[in-house]
Amino acid sequence: MVLPIDKLFSLIDFLGVFAAALGGAIAAVRDTRYKYDLVGVTGLAFAAALGGGIIRDLILQHGPPLAFSDSRYLLLALAGAAVGMLFANRAGKYTDRAIAFVDAAALGLFAVAGSTRAINAGLGRLPALLLGIVTAAGGGSLRDVLSGRTPKIFEGGQIYAIAAAFGAAVFVICDSLHLDRSMSTLAGALCGFGLRVLALRFDWKTRPVRR
Amino acid sequence: MVLPIDKLFSLIDFLGVFAAALGGAIAAVRDTRYKYDLVGVTGLAFAAALGGGIIRDLILQHGPPLAFSDSRYLLLALAGAAVGMLFANRAGKYTDRAIAFVDAAALGLFAVAGSTRAINAGLGRLPALLLGIVTAAGGGSLRDVLSGRTPKIFEGGQIYAIAAAFGAAVFVICDSLHLDRSMSTLAGALCGFGLRVLALRFDWKTRPVRR
Amino acid sequence: MVLPIDKLFSLIDFLGVFAAALGGAIAAVRDTRYKYDLVGVTGLAFAAALGGGIIRDLILQHGPPLAFSDSRYLLLALAGAAVGMLFANRAGKYTDRAIAFVDAAALGLFAVAGSTRAINAGLGRLPALLLGIVTAAGGGSLRDVLSGRTPKIFEGGQIYAIAAAFGAAVFVICDSLHLDRSMSTLAGALCGFGLRVLALRFDWKTRPVRR
Repeated sequence: MVLPIDKLFSLIDFLGVFAAALGGAIAAVRDTRYKYDLVGVTGLAFAAALGGGIIRDLILQHGPPLAFSDSRYLLLALAGAAVGMLFANRAGKYTDRAIAFVDAAALGLFAVAGSTRAINAGLGRLPALLLGIVTAAGGGSLRDVLSGRTPKIFEGGQIYAIAAAFGAAVFVICDSLHLDRSMSTLAGALCGFGLRVLALRFDWKTRPVRR
Repeated sequence: MVLPIDKLFSLIDFLGVFAAALGGAIAAVRDTRYKYDLVGVTGLAFAAALGGGIIRDLILQHGPPLAFSDSRYLLLALAGAAVGMLFANRAGKYTDRAIAFVDAAALGLFAVAGSTRAINAGLGRLPALLLGIVTAAGGGSLRDVLSGRTPKIFEGGQIYAIAAAFGAAVFVICDSLHLDRSMSTLAGALCGFGLRVLALRFDWKTRPVRR
Repeated sequence: MVLPIDKLFSLIDFLGVFAAALGGAIAAVRDTRYKYDLVGVTGLAFAAALGGGIIRDLILQHGPPLAFSDSRYLLLALAGAAVGMLFANRAGKYTDRAIAFVDAAALGLFAVAGSTRAINAGLGRLPALLLGIVTAAGGGSLRDVLSGRTPKIFEGGQIYAIAAAFGAAVFVICDSLHLDRSMSTLAGALCGFGLRVLALRFDWKTRPVRR
């Protein structure tokens, strides 16, 4: 069976929303500072899963965000939040790894999806790059702000926004070289995903700017 | 004298904005962590009063938010903030109860108003439900984030977002059964209001998800 | 050589974005609570430089924000962030003063620019005033929220939002008296700038509302 490439991307897109909601719910349940109730865990899972895309769609101003106009996103976020809540106390090392893996795939794809929509809307390459990063990192950042924290991408030392920037940059460069759009998408998504996975595997960290 | 139902809703809508600004200003003046100046108290009162509607209108993308295009909202928020500042130190138990009561009425109506606009914009039932919750709970959440806190609806244990969800759900269900729109509005607003008032009266609380 | 007035405003607008990014980057590097990495410093500098205009453009809903549709804004923010990072540890009293001075000029101009766009979009005078304040103070506030703080304009005691309100009010009043648009702009921008500089020079502070 051959899966057409756009079906594959749709699948990863949906998987990414599910994984982000799952991860967001687990993080909220395990939070040591606040004891979130059902509303809190669901709200933070939704923010993590849908926040990046909503911010992207608000900036592009092409009508209501996809998360509101296509109910499948909401249903997947809801499912991820529910599964996360049920299994948060049971999730072990392997679950965490699986979530990090799907999250890395979503990071690459969300970054490219953000840049693609920016280019389709006629924006320049630099804004397209920024929108890719905002799409990939926006959900997690919104969740962090709603938890009363500074976004982890700013101070955690994780190669996260940088992986998104790398994926988006590869896509934008390929696209401006007039490569086939699905090839550019694949290249960008794989590069973002790959850098994130390598950073996790070898524990690469950024350094604080202050010496 | 008979008050037509849409006039009544307009009145509650305006009262809700006034009450939210009043409550926001009082909370800001009494804040024990920060000592807000005039700008801070007014800013937080505005966020509480207008934030939910602004977020709703940004998501629906139907031109500038109502809070900016209809000056009455701004004037009412300003009046609420001013009255709140003047009476914050004198407000006692009865004032607090009156604010909580008007706030509960506004919660029910804002939830239904959010869902109504979503359905009018052609969104599905599930997004309409979510937008109702966001409209009702968005203002208070924005105020909390601007005060450097995690939104109270996430961790306070209050039946707040759940009451909004209940009111919005009743409205969406009535509406999808093709009931008269003003009947559906009334039913949804009363259900949201009623659950909130009952939760306050009998001190119903949610439990943290973590066991 | 005579510089036409709209060129001058464009110049201050760009200088303001550069200065805000520079100041944002320096503040992020010097932050004592968090140790920001490259992504954090750049992100906070971008928020400070572009946040106010992005919030303004989202509210006005006239297509993608200027910060995304005109690449010069992004490039200037990037340049400001880079220079800020390089010189943060070397910046002394004179640099801080120069940044505060350009920032005050940007405050006056951003306030007037926000009100101008609101009036051009057909909004009333009161919303135009509010949008002027939001444009001038939004970037710094977004940066503060992303740093896990309550916005400085709310509790710092600084005459900041008040200076923006003063500049925007002077502009809106002049404009509603049908004065020449560029005269109104000049008057508003100078009044906002002037009040801010005087407040810094003579250390004027607001008082907390609570007695």
